[in-house]
Amino acid sequence: MVMNRERLAEMLLEVGALKFGDFVLSSGKRSDYYVDIKEACTHPKVLDALTDALLEVLPDGDVLAGPELGAVPLVSVLSVKAGLPMAIVRKRKKEYGTGERIVGDVRGRKVVLVDDVATTGGSLLEALEAIEEEGGEVRDAVVVVDRQEGAEEALKERGVRLSSVLTADDLRGLRDAESTARG
Amino acid sequence: MVMNRERLAEMLLEVGALKFGDFVLSSGKRSDYYVDIKEACTHPKVLDALTDALLEVLPDGDVLAGPELGAVPLVSVLSVKAGLPMAIVRKRKKEYGTGERIVGDVRGRKVVLVDDVATTGGSLLEALEAIEEEGGEVRDAVVVVDRQEGAEEALKERGVRLSSVLTADDLRGLRDAESTARG
Repeated sequence: MVMNRERLAEMLLEVGALKFGDFVLSSGKRSDYYVDIKEACTHPKVLDALTDALLEVLPDGDVLAGPELGAVPLVSVLSVKAGLPMAIVRKRKKEYGTGERIVGDVRGRKVVLVDDVATTGGSLLEALEAIEEEGGEVRDAVVVVDRQEGAEEALKERGVRLSSVLTADDLRGLRDAESTARG
Repeated sequence: MVMNRERLAEMLLEVGALKFGDFVLSSGKRSDYYVDIKEACTHPKVLDALTDALLEVLPDGDVLAGPELGAVPLVSVLSVKAGLPMAIVRKRKKEYGTGERIVGDVRGRKVVLVDDVATTGGSLLEALEAIEEEGGEVRDAVVVVDRQEGAEEALKERGVRLSSVLTADDLRGLRDAESTARG
């Protein structure tokens, strides 16, 4: 069942995980929309629909890996749906040795990185480094929302292809369609 | 389908997430078994079986909440299977205000706490406090493994009933059955 992007974006609107207006992001930058996939994942129907959509765009790989915390609900449900093992990349913690930084086995495996939102690609690149340190190979990353703010280019430089369920353009397209409908 | 406990314990053994011998736990205490449910959850068949088993013992509630990190794969898959909203209780972080400490809505709701392992009940009690600070009510907690080292009593003192899929006795029962079978 191909989940259409518009319906997914509407679900995010309905649960208050997508808002349009004038926002200042945690990075300090301004944005005309706000999206919180972590919050969206706390609603079972949304988490179910988002992981079905991720399954449809999921590139080939041996194991799914997501950085703590936002990716963990997505990668867990996706792992069961896809029947693929998963791994969790913990945030950089002084007391962790590299070995303990990753829950799960990535050594010698083709790893698909999964995350909720890609902005500049910073957290994906950090997870990529931790996985490569542990002997894993990353050729693909997949996210729910690509904010189209540099992640694709940054990952391309490291030989990683970024796919997404929704882009910033998709979200703005929905906003414009809704405002035209309201006339 | 009632998943029998022995088969679940065998699955944990098969993926190396359950071991018998002489171990020193992170707490410094000695133990005749070692169990790592975080590691077990990285195997899709095990995560699927554990969440089916949790579903069978799941007490009544409005929302499922689990402490970061070990509970998050369990509570995410369980949320989709049970069709119940979920919440994640972040570890105590100085920079988090209480409001940001919990991802998801627990205010005015009957919350079932979910975790991977209960030992003394410490992390469950910490999560309980964060949820109560946010206006949630906790009457039940459910874990995959109850190590039977004080958690049940500690939670009872706070009016919370602890249920589990497996207990330390179950795990030792499997060990003894296997060694008898080997003759």
